Amino acid sequence: PLRGKHDERSLVFADLTKEEYVQVQQFMLSQKDLDISTNQITKPSENFLFLIDLSLPKKTEVLGYLDGKVNKPAREATVVIFYGARGYIKEYVVGPLPNPTRYIDVTKERYKTEIIPINARTVTVGEYALLFQFFQTNVFSKLQKLMIESFGVGPGKTLQPFEQMPRGVRSGDRTTWVSFFRDMSGMYIQPVGFEVQVNHESVNASNWRVERLLYNGQYFNTVDELRQKYDSNSINKIVYKKLPDYGCLKPKNKPLQIGPQMFYVEGKRFSVSKNHVLYLDWSFAFGLSSLTGMRVFDVRFKGERIVYELSVQEAMSVYGSITPGMMLTKFLDSSIGIGRFAHELVRGVDCPHEATYVDTYRYIDVPVPVRYENSICIFEHNMGQPLRRHFADFSHHSYGGMVNSALVVRTITSIGNYDYMWDFIFYQSGSVEAKVHATGYITSSYLVDGNQKYGHQVADKVLGNIHTHFVNFKVDLDVVGVKNVFQTKDMQFVNVSLPWMPDHYAMIPQLVEKQLKTEQEAALRYDTKTPRYLHIASRSINQWGHHRSYRLQVYSFAGDHLPESQTEERALSWARYKVAITKHKDLERTSSSLYSQNNIWTPAVDFSKYIEDNESIEDEDLVAWVTAGFLHIPHAEDIPNTVTVGNGGGVLLRPHNYFNEDPSIHSVDGVYFSPG
Amino acid sequence: PLRGKHDERSLVFADLTKEEYVQVQQFMLSQKDLDISTNQITKPSENFLFLIDLSLPKKTEVLGYLDGKVNKPAREATVVIFYGARGYIKEYVVGPLPNPTRYIDVTKERYKTEIIPINARTVTVGEYALLFQFFQTNVFSKLQKLMIESFGVGPGKTLQPFEQMPRGVRSGDRTTWVSFFRDMSGMYIQPVGFEVQVNHESVNASNWRVERLLYNGQYFNTVDELRQKYDSNSINKIVYKKLPDYGCLKPKNKPLQIGPQMFYVEGKRFSVSKNHVLYLDWSFAFGLSSLTGMRVFDVRFKGERIVYELSVQEAMSVYGSITPGMMLTKFLDSSIGIGRFAHELVRGVDCPHEATYVDTYRYIDVPVPVRYENSICIFEHNMGQPLRRHFADFSHHSYGGMVNSALVVRTITSIGNYDYMWDFIFYQSGSVEAKVHATGYITSSYLVDGNQKYGHQVADKVLGNIHTHFVNFKVDLDVVGVKNVFQTKDMQFVNVSLPWMPDHYAMIPQLVEKQLKTEQEAALRYDTKTPRYLHIASRSINQWGHHRSYRLQVYSFAGDHLPESQTEERALSWARYKVAITKHKDLERTSSSLYSQNNIWTPAVDFSKYIEDNESIEDEDLVAWVTAGFLHIPHAEDIPNTVTVGNGGGVLLRPHNYFNEDPSIHSVDGVYFSPG
Ligand SMILES: [Ca+2]
Ligand SMILES: [Ca+2]
Ligand SMILES: [Ca+2]
Ligand SMILES: [Ca+2]
Ligand SMILES: [Cu+2]
Ligand SMILES: [Cu+2]
Repeated sequence: PLRGKHDERSLVFADLTKEEYVQVQQFMLSQKDLDISTNQITKPSENFLFLIDLSLPKKTEVLGYLDGKVNKPAREATVVIFYGARGYIKEYVVGPLPNPTRYIDVTKERYKTEIIPINARTVTVGEYALLFQFFQTNVFSKLQKLMIESFGVGPGKTLQPFEQMPRGVRSGDRTTWVSFFRDMSGMYIQPVGFEVQVNHESVNASNWRVERLLYNGQYFNTVDELRQKYDSNSINKIVYKKLPDYGCLKPKNKPLQIGPQMFYVEGKRFSVSKNHVLYLDWSFAFGLSSLTGMRVFDVRFKGERIVYELSVQEAMSVYGSITPGMMLTKFLDSSIGIGRFAHELVRGVDCPHEATYVDTYRYIDVPVPVRYENSICIFEHNMGQPLRRHFADFSHHSYGGMVNSALVVRTITSIGNYDYMWDFIFYQSGSVEAKVHATGYITSSYLVDGNQKYGHQVADKVLGNIHTHFVNFKVDLDVVGVKNVFQTKDMQFVNVSLPWMPDHYAMIPQLVEKQLKTEQEAALRYDTKTPRYLHIASRSINQWGHHRSYRLQVYSFAGDHLPESQTEERALSWARYKVAITKHKDLERTSSSLYSQNNIWTPAVDFSKYIEDNESIEDEDLVAWVTAGFLHIPHAEDIPNTVTVGNGGGVLLRPHNYFNEDPSIHSVDGVYFSPG
Repeated sequence: PLRGKHDERSLVFADLTKEEYVQVQQFMLSQKDLDISTNQITKPSENFLFLIDLSLPKKTEVLGYLDGKVNKPAREATVVIFYGARGYIKEYVVGPLPNPTRYIDVTKERYKTEIIPINARTVTVGEYALLFQFFQTNVFSKLQKLMIESFGVGPGKTLQPFEQMPRGVRSGDRTTWVSFFRDMSGMYIQPVGFEVQVNHESVNASNWRVERLLYNGQYFNTVDELRQKYDSNSINKIVYKKLPDYGCLKPKNKPLQIGPQMFYVEGKRFSVSKNHVLYLDWSFAFGLSSLTGMRVFDVRFKGERIVYELSVQEAMSVYGSITPGMMLTKFLDSSIGIGRFAHELVRGVDCPHEATYVDTYRYIDVPVPVRYENSICIFEHNMGQPLRRHFADFSHHSYGGMVNSALVVRTITSIGNYDYMWDFIFYQSGSVEAKVHATGYITSSYLVDGNQKYGHQVADKVLGNIHTHFVNFKVDLDVVGVKNVFQTKDMQFVNVSLPWMPDHYAMIPQLVEKQLKTEQEAALRYDTKTPRYLHIASRSINQWGHHRSYRLQVYSFAGDHLPESQTEERALSWARYKVAITKHKDLERTSSSLYSQNNIWTPAVDFSKYIEDNESIEDEDLVAWVTAGFLHIPHAEDIPNTVTVGNGGGVLLRPHNYFNEDPSIHSVDGVYFSPG
């Protein structure tokens, strides 16, 4: 039996439907002057409709609508066009759906720049097709002897490419080092020792050229130079040898006895209707942005809104290597699309068998909207531990407790080598958690002299490269309305005279509470000591006179992200802070952007600018931007895959004087015995 | 089907049996010259057999035996006698069992002191009986009017006491502030505003006296003074009012629909025989010390020993208050006994229904050994997430993964107000985790002026006092034998010229590895920046040439434990360090001691002494002592009970180049599909 009812108003947050994507696509195609193609392999020199995604309405409009005060905001889409023929990128808002009548250029509004240069664009399927052709024609076909002798590949067989990003060292660059890997499962841990730098700055593929090559640790300026030196035996050669398929995930043993399984013996205690979820005292809406991934909105407990938006913003990795293909690598996943790679979840492995699986539709770098079956799962899980319990031994012999059953909303995004598991968890004690764990393949480089400083060897001639994992979450808590303050609490030892023997002093822990009043005060840098309790608080008080608040408890093993001296750093300036608090703005939608990866030197979004104006955060609508992550020094046990255990981070949002008592005392899962 | 066989040699680590306790007890009673009583309410002035517990054999003897080289070591017990008649405490080793022939005084050997003063003893049931009688006669019976008017209690009804520890401010003190609470469920959050300081330094109860009283924030030197001032209406009175039973754990709602449950649909994949566990590739022995609690020994993966001992050492809390009953409080739970309070676990709440439940027997402050039914549970749990997975999108379309099913060994100790859940978890990836979570009741004090600096109000006139939770684990990893080194790894940005464009420099992360060579170098203080990777490593290498190691990953929100200026600090000096590495010594058994709480100023064990001699830790048998914990600022949601979510800490032991690949690739739980 469910408490509460599903609320169709949650559709204000819903991802676009298949029909809506088509409506937007057709409307844009009908704008003949824009001269847009939606062909899957549109050339970079043409104008390509890259992305259609939900454009969220303004928060005040949504709140008015949710609270029954105003009509439903217009339903609109964000459209991104890569104008290859014109040399720039534009972002439009198209609406109202279902029958769009307008497209508005929002590029300047959103990015404070008239145009976004075309080379800030994500490499599309169309560009990849040309790049593969380029390598075939200009590299592989000219190195047939080397290819077969060194790598065992000849005509009809090939190597697999994996690219370095950013693609160069300064704005405008699009000069990509591509490393080659054996065409086997888990190619990411199968480097062959061959890397090629291709200049694809021009939107005309005919202008592309090989800039440099690296073969077995030796650099060459042209393919011909490599070929000649190879043929004349004047270089150190790699001699092909067949290696065991250590990247293969096929089980080496047969299942003998199935492990523990979870069942809903009396049915599901949650319900999913469209994008709205009901679970015991919780309700919320969910969605999956093609770019930023999982998000939930309008999270309520017993009908009271606690979180307006909780969303993934970015997943970033900085690598170290002596080989060019990994040396400068700083992956910014939202520029290729995090939600884009939320594929089908496997029942019984990725989520329990009994989970509810939800399909999603996306339109990113495709000719038609694509359905991703079972790409979100929602399930209640028995965490195998009590949420609370007490055994009374000394007096009033009794036992009271309840098991920790919580609702999990999960998606797993496989972005090339890595698989990130994104969980939002709703606990009966009124806490919400956002967590990420990394699994999948590490990336690696061919082991050459000097590379041991950048990681550990993990297979024959393979170096697992040192790297970081940083993720950023947007946490827009609204604690008893939108007007909040940012409070910190900690403990401090104070030398106090004992009231009953005043000549005796002792160091006693005292509570230290502070309110941080400006954005810059509240931008908590990773390398500074920060108070242990961070709160988004309301001026309103609970029954005991304390500010009602939610505490942000960050689980992270992150450290330094990149020295600020580096040009690239501004594109990842969100990672300077464990937690940063800003005044909410509709135009400060995300901490990163689609254009950060490929124009990392002049990023379309520089998060640090959100706090540069140092606005007051007193009695304002506050947003917390939370960074979590860890350092990954790859080791043999990362082969074939990194395990989730120990490789994660996140943030727990906990009520702190928000209620008058623990709300789980009202749970139907409570258990109590006493001898009487 | 189980891999491997149970090994009876694990009994070398087994807790004493009921019969063995009796053998030891009878042997000690037969030593007439010792003049020992085992009566439950032995007076403090008499000689009391307080404790019988397993005395672990020397590690070299055990290893020789486990490895089949020497005979089974003698089975021996530790016996603690509180010689009230003689003014000291002695610790003996009694053996060999089953027919003991000797008792050896090990006090000096273990504690570097001839005798332990009698006031270092734990308060026994016998002493408590006299204390309650003392309060009845000397306090309550003289304050009947006040008692009924202020607290609603008269003859036949009473208040419940809760004591402050340590009991004074200097060595020899045994002057305890006792706070009184309403005789209701969850008394710990029911303070009435009445505290009495009793001097019970003398072993003769006839010498005990009331030193001071606190009533409604006002101090009095004698009971008579309080009574006179109360009767003459010259003080601020508390007027009794009946309050709702907010400490009660009785469910407020009826179960309507049972939550998710876990089942072993094809039976258990683990086996428990006596104190030996087999689980997939894992095997280990377990035990429960009455003092220090849960521990596992001889933890092996595929037959290879990884951990010799992983054990709980201490659970400590430091409180702040303006009221004397909480002001100086520093609880050191192993001095009253952590394992002692491992009570029956409730099926379906504390552990899953299908867990294996194990009984334990203890002899601590009792006349006969006591059986604790179902006080340890062992179960395999489906963690509701993949241990690893990868979806291959771009080439070799395939999916490989496996669910994270792991074995949990759990006990929950209810030490007065708090319940600590202790978990040891064995993962299929070769990791072992030791975790603790806190639940149960907070302690509290009556809300008087000035106390708001020490916490938050959580109920009518009730302050939840600020405090810390610190736990210490002993982690005796033996990585490929006992001779190990301590390695650290981290990342450092280094300015490097790009090999293909040498005039361009970039900051690239490099691996920084260090070996710390002495105990003092390897004592990592909580307030210093420490490398992110800490390893116990072997000189032997894996297939790829790297030192085989296990990494210690500490999950903790702890901070400063107590300034070192405080006399009490040496008793908790283990909390100075996140991780400290010592050379293994049989006589450095524990980081704390039974005598630390009640003689906190001259502790029998001062952990910092283990590292004072600054021994070499190069190619030695190393022990890591790990501190985890968190700051607890109580809030309304701690009423009635603190929840486990977010209130925990622990350490994960992870293979790092220990294997040549992730061992879970051999798991029978692996799943793989491909389109072919
Ligand atoms: Ca701002
Ligand atoms: Ca807000
Ligand atoms: Ca030492
Ligand atoms: Ca060791
Ligand atoms: Cu990684
Ligand atoms: Cu606590």
